[in-house]
Amino acid sequence: MDYYSSQISKLIEELSSLPGIGSKSAGRLAFHILNMPVEHVEKLSATIIEARKKVRYCRNCYTLTDEELCPICKNEQRNHKLIMVVEDTRDLAAYEKTNKYEGVYHVLHGAISPMLGVGPNDIKLKELMKRLQDDVDEVIIATNSSLEGETTAMYISKLIKPTGIKVSRIASGVPVGGDLEYIDEMTLLRALEGRTEL
Amino acid sequence: MDYYSSQISKLIEELSSLPGIGSKSAGRLAFHILNMPVEHVEKLSATIIEARKKVRYCRNCYTLTDEELCPICKNEQRNHKLIMVVEDTRDLAAYEKTNKYEGVYHVLHGAISPMLGVGPNDIKLKELMKRLQDDVDEVIIATNSSLEGETTAMYISKLIKPTGIKVSRIASGVPVGGDLEYIDEMTLLRALEGRTEL
Repeated sequence: MDYYSSQISKLIEELSSLPGIGSKSAGRLAFHILNMPVEHVEKLSATIIEARKKVRYCRNCYTLTDEELCPICKNEQRNHKLIMVVEDTRDLAAYEKTNKYEGVYHVLHGAISPMLGVGPNDIKLKELMKRLQDDVDEVIIATNSSLEGETTAMYISKLIKPTGIKVSRIASGVPVGGDLEYIDEMTLLRALEGRTEL
Repeated sequence: MDYYSSQISKLIEELSSLPGIGSKSAGRLAFHILNMPVEHVEKLSATIIEARKKVRYCRNCYTLTDEELCPICKNEQRNHKLIMVVEDTRDLAAYEKTNKYEGVYHVLHGAISPMLGVGPNDIKLKELMKRLQDDVDEVIIATNSSLEGETTAMYISKLIKPTGIKVSRIASGVPVGGDLEYIDEMTLLRALEGRTEL
């Protein structure tokens, strides 16, 4: 890319290493940044570095937060005896957006994947088991409906069962508004297996 | 977004103000950054700010570069009597990728748009006219094939004609590999008008 100066090429290269940003988007982003007022670029740059440096795991549920305890773990209105286990902070956010879940969370930061060499010790599983020593009514496993998510759900449920604590798994089936015609066979079978009486 | 900490929300907000990045992509990007090693985040952040601060306009053709003269203007192998006028540095890069154009460029940084209140004085037009005082054989106008691009092309050609310098416009028509069935009527008419004898 010697038709760009080395600074521009370097910027495009850095940006295109980010997820979901191909070389075309990286170019568009780079030129947008180069045309932004310097103060705005300084703010963007500072926000990135500050967020990365200040954000850490919540001491209790391991979600990403900038305080020792995240706002959810700190909230006494929430039911701390109900723990939903999710793979990452974005999954937590997805359930928070429903505005209906009253319990707390536990963020694993991954899922067990023998293919990728991710074992039970590579995710926040010991930390979950430690939390179960407190008074907990139910653990809802809300890992993704992928091979890794399902493997992780099975593994966790086997670990928890002996403790006598109730373990559940979120339902898998046809998405609301989903047209059966366009839904894959696995999902259709899951929906059939999980049918509820009306 | 109070399910995220304020640092994370701030980062997502900053990122989603960039072009082509919606709130979902901004979330994905933000969490990617939060999971990156600190040193890598520092490098990304520094590259952004350094590029913005070091990059400036080429003294001659006004493309974005990090030296006084861009690599193309510095190159004595290029034909400096042939100037291609483009709207921005990305358009220049697009022609450079063809590896066939031997002349130099002039970057306008915009196009005349009465709708957006962009007049001839808001783009690098005076700078182009000044360059024409040197020995120039031909000016190729390669502004976009949009309303603004066409308006700009017309305006420039009227300015240059009295000087006696040859002015041309890149051809507009059916893209190579384009299927006529999917091409808009305006382009089809342009292609018809611009037909060449075989």
